[in-house]
Amino acid sequence: MARDFAFELVAQDRRTGARAGLLHTPHGTVETPLFMPVGTQAAVKTLSQQDLEGLGAQVLLANAYHLYLRPGAELVARAGGLHGFMGWGRPILTDSGGFQVFSLSGLTRIEEEGVYFRSHLDGSRHLFSPEKVMEIEHHLGADFIMAFDECTPYPCTEEYARNSMELTVRWAQRCAARHTQLQQEQEVPQALFGIVQGSVYPALRQRCAAELEALDLPGYAVGGLGVGEPPEMMRETLTSTLSHLPAHKPRYLMGVGLPHDLVEGVAAGVDMFDCVIPTRNARNGTAFTRLGRVRLKNAVLAEDPGPLDPECSCLTCTRYSRAYLRHLFQTREILGLRLATYHNLHFFLELMRRMRRAIIAGEFAGWQAEFLAAYRD
Amino acid sequence: MARDFAFELVAQDRRTGARAGLLHTPHGTVETPLFMPVGTQAAVKTLSQQDLEGLGAQVLLANAYHLYLRPGAELVARAGGLHGFMGWGRPILTDSGGFQVFSLSGLTRIEEEGVYFRSHLDGSRHLFSPEKVMEIEHHLGADFIMAFDECTPYPCTEEYARNSMELTVRWAQRCAARHTQLQQEQEVPQALFGIVQGSVYPALRQRCAAELEALDLPGYAVGGLGVGEPPEMMRETLTSTLSHLPAHKPRYLMGVGLPHDLVEGVAAGVDMFDCVIPTRNARNGTAFTRLGRVRLKNAVLAEDPGPLDPECSCLTCTRYSRAYLRHLFQTREILGLRLATYHNLHFFLELMRRMRRAIIAGEFAGWQAEFLAAYRD
Repeated sequence: MARDFAFELVAQDRRTGARAGLLHTPHGTVETPLFMPVGTQAAVKTLSQQDLEGLGAQVLLANAYHLYLRPGAELVARAGGLHGFMGWGRPILTDSGGFQVFSLSGLTRIEEEGVYFRSHLDGSRHLFSPEKVMEIEHHLGADFIMAFDECTPYPCTEEYARNSMELTVRWAQRCAARHTQLQQEQEVPQALFGIVQGSVYPALRQRCAAELEALDLPGYAVGGLGVGEPPEMMRETLTSTLSHLPAHKPRYLMGVGLPHDLVEGVAAGVDMFDCVIPTRNARNGTAFTRLGRVRLKNAVLAEDPGPLDPECSCLTCTRYSRAYLRHLFQTREILGLRLATYHNLHFFLELMRRMRRAIIAGEFAGWQAEFLAAYRD
Repeated sequence: MARDFAFELVAQDRRTGARAGLLHTPHGTVETPLFMPVGTQAAVKTLSQQDLEGLGAQVLLANAYHLYLRPGAELVARAGGLHGFMGWGRPILTDSGGFQVFSLSGLTRIEEEGVYFRSHLDGSRHLFSPEKVMEIEHHLGADFIMAFDECTPYPCTEEYARNSMELTVRWAQRCAARHTQLQQEQEVPQALFGIVQGSVYPALRQRCAAELEALDLPGYAVGGLGVGEPPEMMRETLTSTLSHLPAHKPRYLMGVGLPHDLVEGVAAGVDMFDCVIPTRNARNGTAFTRLGRVRLKNAVLAEDPGPLDPECSCLTCTRYSRAYLRHLFQTREILGLRLATYHNLHFFLELMRRMRRAIIAGEFAGWQAEFLAAYRD
């Protein structure tokens, strides 16, 4: 199994923690650092799988909580797993749904066994235990599957964070045990990633990382960041946490973030990212460019004949004017959501490709300074 | 101008009124019979212009009433007309908006001068006169522009229908006069089509056709059908109306209809169609196939691994299962609306291409009988 998900470091920046790698999976090899578009319900909102291939998306993210409720994990398994169900041949990662259980469902009760919750769709009662979540993620059949954790809220006391982190560690141990059993019955291997919690407390993060490393998992994620803490605190926590993770395994920063967060994350040594920002903000009418955001509903664009981003080569920017995009948002045409989503994902994916090239060329630190000087959030 | 929109008959069926033609426009030559996807607000809902090119759409329809309100016809003119504004290089037809003025706006008052109405968006007061509508359609710059008419409701008395038809004729005369003036100031020619009204009264339809023919317009439409009258009545009215229209000019049946309506319309001698059915029904979860409709929300599809339409070669049917499409509709993913729209338009456009081939091969009557025997509405 370790060989199936081998991670090769191709280049490391001398002045930062940035690194470029190759991550092997049963559905092909992907290039890191990479950004994973979010397809919560087995669809990236407004985009087709053909679009995502055209954009060069390497890994899609889907969500175990949502897919467990609809259409059901066993149905997906009978359809050939998520790859067969969605018609997507490249790698997939499933989030365990821990975050959604806490954020979406009502009447959540956390116990040692797991989390009792009610469906946000019909109020029905369910239990997510580490074992149950592993079974769901095995049914879904993604290449990368995430352990079931408690995403610690911010702010929280050190005591809450410690108890929560310790629970996350015990759950990760149970996930690993059940995953090992399930793998024996499966043909296609899956890589279980552990999730480091511990809020903004360095000692807790360090202990969590050490406990998870003992499980010898093929990759590790940093969770519980980008949940409201100040930017400096996120940066410090990320840097110190990464220093406690094994350098030869992929590192995934969950749910972060804005373009400058990605750049700083790569500089800190992150290999994988996911975030709803490019897709969700697109639907709210916000587009990203190298210089910052463009508000597509802004009246100033009404007669602007130029492309959304003059430096962009995507299908949106090479064909449609800012004036037309604004019209689509004014008239609530679905095409507007789609063209903005396409552009934003192109921007995020291209940003990752540029960083990879800069790392390999040995020019990352200079590139980073230039990018951050130009980008206005 | 007549030469700019020359209509060549390529083949005529011996047993029906069906005919295949070539219609020349300043934006290229199109093949008839043809179906025009409806892009009311300068966008076919959910689809990109790249999609529409891939589908082989030859002419797009847009709506003068909607575009006059948003973003404004003069703004579109400054953006290079609809072709420039939308980024669409093939022909466009604009409906005059008469139908929308009557159906969408409140407090409509019809006078000899024109129609006084309030915007359905903000309640502001406007007047659409024949001259005003010609100015709007000239600003929009479509290849084909429709005269401003009153779309007679069904049912209505013969007296109402006569007065309404006579008003439509006087308005068409005013449209033609203003159009002639405006053409002198314009570089790119536009073809003004007249609209035959007269409800289901053959004598009124005949008189309207004769009056409009006297204007020597480059094409004629049949309006006021598919508005609630029984199918036999639509068929009879259409056939008798077409018999009074010049055979050497294109004939356009407005706003109709279902697949079998298109087949029967072609058999009667119609060259051009538009309808929201393929796009609107797709968004409601109804897909069309050669055997009839498929309800994409139907639970029976939940585990169906086959394509929506096994005979279809579109991007939806060659990649996604019925189970996945149903999931997208269950979870209200925008991608579902888009994949269904793509398939339905492919079905409608392919239907037209098949009819054209059958007409040219001299096999239309047999093809028609076979199609109608298999299709269950």
